[in-house]
Amino acid sequence: MGQKVAIGKMAVLLASLSDEELTFFRPSLSAVQYCQGKVGSMNMQKVISAVETAAKRNKLIHESYYRETHALYHAIMEGIEGVTRGQPAIGEMSRTVGLRFAVVRGTPYTEIGEGEWIAVAFYGTIGAPVKGAEHETIGLGINHI
Amino acid sequence: MGQKVAIGKMAVLLASLSDEELTFFRPSLSAVQYCQGKVGSMNMQKVISAVETAAKRNKLIHESYYRETHALYHAIMEGIEGVTRGQPAIGEMSRTVGLRFAVVRGTPYTEIGEGEWIAVAFYGTIGAPVKGAEHETIGLGINHI
Amino acid sequence: MGQKVAIGKMAVLLASLSDEELTFFRPSLSAVQYCQGKVGSMNMQKVISAVETAAKRNKLIHESYYRETHALYHAIMEGIEGVTRGQPAIGEMSRTVGLRFAVVRGTPYTEIGEGEWIAVAFYGTIGAPVKGAEHETIGLGINHI
Amino acid sequence: MGQKVAIGKMAVLLASLSDEELTFFRPSLSAVQYCQGKVGSMNMQKVISAVETAAKRNKLIHESYYRETHALYHAIMEGIEGVTRGQPAIGEMSRTVGLRFAVVRGTPYTEIGEGEWIAVAFYGTIGAPVKGAEHETIGLGINHI
Amino acid sequence: MGQKVAIGKMAVLLASLSDEELTFFRPSLSAVQYCQGKVGSMNMQKVISAVETAAKRNKLIHESYYRETHALYHAIMEGIEGVTRGQPAIGEMSRTVGLRFAVVRGTPYTEIGEGEWIAVAFYGTIGAPVKGAEHETIGLGINHI
Amino acid sequence: MGQKVAIGKMAVLLASLSDEELTFFRPSLSAVQYCQGKVGSMNMQKVISAVETAAKRNKLIHESYYRETHALYHAIMEGIEGVTRGQPAIGEMSRTVGLRFAVVRGTPYTEIGEGEWIAVAFYGTIGAPVKGAEHETIGLGINHI
Repeated sequence: MGQKVAIGKMAVLLASLSDEELTFFRPSLSAVQYCQGKVGSMNMQKVISAVETAAKRNKLIHESYYRETHALYHAIMEGIEGVTRGQPAIGEMSRTVGLRFAVVRGTPYTEIGEGEWIAVAFYGTIGAPVKGAEHETIGLGINHI
Repeated sequence: MGQKVAIGKMAVLLASLSDEELTFFRPSLSAVQYCQGKVGSMNMQKVISAVETAAKRNKLIHESYYRETHALYHAIMEGIEGVTRGQPAIGEMSRTVGLRFAVVRGTPYTEIGEGEWIAVAFYGTIGAPVKGAEHETIGLGINHI
Repeated sequence: MGQKVAIGKMAVLLASLSDEELTFFRPSLSAVQYCQGKVGSMNMQKVISAVETAAKRNKLIHESYYRETHALYHAIMEGIEGVTRGQPAIGEMSRTVGLRFAVVRGTPYTEIGEGEWIAVAFYGTIGAPVKGAEHETIGLGINHI
Repeated sequence: MGQKVAIGKMAVLLASLSDEELTFFRPSLSAVQYCQGKVGSMNMQKVISAVETAAKRNKLIHESYYRETHALYHAIMEGIEGVTRGQPAIGEMSRTVGLRFAVVRGTPYTEIGEGEWIAVAFYGTIGAPVKGAEHETIGLGINHI
Repeated sequence: MGQKVAIGKMAVLLASLSDEELTFFRPSLSAVQYCQGKVGSMNMQKVISAVETAAKRNKLIHESYYRETHALYHAIMEGIEGVTRGQPAIGEMSRTVGLRFAVVRGTPYTEIGEGEWIAVAFYGTIGAPVKGAEHETIGLGINHI
Repeated sequence: MGQKVAIGKMAVLLASLSDEELTFFRPSLSAVQYCQGKVGSMNMQKVISAVETAAKRNKLIHESYYRETHALYHAIMEGIEGVTRGQPAIGEMSRTVGLRFAVVRGTPYTEIGEGEWIAVAFYGTIGAPVKGAEHETIGLGINHI
């Protein structure tokens, strides 16, 4: 049996909590691989690219295998669905995002055959391209990898 | 100036953390009104209804004003967009959800004129109607009220 | 050259105005074929069916030709997109509609080769299944026939 | 009790009727605040911006409160759903719009506690970026403010 | 009675098979009008435009009638829904397509009154803008014309 | 290096061609695992379930591993997006489908590390619940497994 880890919850906490707030959860993080990052943009390609680059640089996915890029891409897009709630578009809809994100790779099931899965979480703000004219948003995507 | 509270983050933590894990965040909760609940279903109407009922019973919205029901409804539906990632349907797409949810009402902006806002968060699992055949999911909706 | 008629505007007025308010527009209606109806439901199939039945009964489409049923169906669904704004679902999203509708068939272009087109308009309310907890909604679909 | 006004219908008529056609409805307009405008574009940001600018310039929303910008934004986007029927995109889908729009602010419910609501209506044409290759379209969004 | 032809299947085979593989199906093609083409892009307008241009150049639609452009446009967009599966966007979602396409015009029903219909099929790859990081995709749209 | 197979094209041909038409393609099928089936319904759950059952019965997925069920489910849903073009709903939108389907599992990339992928294709008709009032439709979903 492998070690069951709530990779989605871990990703959400990594994206939304401060370092101090994370202290309590540090022990759980030792069972997974993860990375964190930030991106602010009206351009969804930049958001996608920021996560992909961070995941590759931190060896969360095998860059040379398309199957891992494919798994990550769909997890990112599902996270973006939560962030954008309805239409995965930002600038085209005259809005902008300021996001922290986290990618977590681990084994969320005790059965070893279930293998590794990947979680992508976003937390931050979405709103008009005017300072303060924004509210919180969150998104989480999960995929087998 | 009012007290600025991250009602979205509060809602997400209330929906996803255990009571013990929440300990650290208790002080921040004193500045908002909130309620928590649980719902498991293949029927989206039941999910919507569970949140509406909890919010009304706990006086988070004025039941007799449609404008508050309207604000809550759209926050719920936006949270469901994150949970369902792509199509706000559950049973019709042969999947089921097991969710904890939280509704938070407070003042997320320091400017008093911004008034009250409402946040609805979901955290739990989504998957096939077979035990264990599911993964984590999250959703957050926010609206002015 | 044929007689150019704004079939979409005609349909919208037929669906939203009272008989008295329509008086001013009666002359324009002589150049088109049209029918009006009403439907209230949480079930989208009933809404679709109400329009199809009214259109067939009033000879707005040739019932025995699928190409005309097909043209009407897509016009109805586009009208429903406006009514539901985001997801063409009613009861599944815990909401109900009370609608008046109109179907107009005519020649919106002066060029004879452009032939006949069909417009379907809805006007009424959408909201929670509680009296008064609803607001106005409109939708218009147009197709070549 | 306040004065009940069908702000959605008012907005639709303001966006779709000529000045002469509107004569009959002028008395009802005295109970609401409204503005009208025009926009033609393949760029949805320009459509959104045209409505926001008109609403602010005509004092239909308090420019300095994000909650009012937020209410207006969602009403605009819901109106655009009706205009675009399916995907809120214009140029990306190789189509263009020529629209008249109206924003109406008023009290659609007799109960004073229901407060003010805002309606945004569009009426015009959508089609290929070729003169005449277009048909009518309409959209209406309504929100509490 | 007209000659019933599966225009959708014809279009799919024309878009996905090699010339050699098509040999077996050549006889069926004599009953329809068709054209084939290729397009690779991150820009959906270019994909739409490539099909429209090929269809006009090969006289599959009457260029001067909007009703035929309208029929073709909706068939193209429905084909793109299959290609993009979820959101009809390419570059905005950081992906690219390499597609072969076919447009077929014919009489899919034996009843003469059903007249002509048009089918648009796409077959090729969709994926990251990196060589090899892509998988197959298909789409088919059909409309009365 | 593994044997590169166009599993998507194989799935589409298996779903759309007659046994006789498939003769030419039989040699390519020896390199993949596949199954075929049929389903007619207004209920999307039945469509999903028909494919899942066929895939499990024919050992195309390991029934006891959720990761394989998860991979198949998303491939099915992507195929349904092509079939339904816009909204993955059937009966709720007053339409019915009559579909043949195929599931193919194989190695679409020469690089061994890319491993196995799964393709789900549908081909058949979609339309009103009236005999003959329907047109062709196709859909293809592909996922790593």
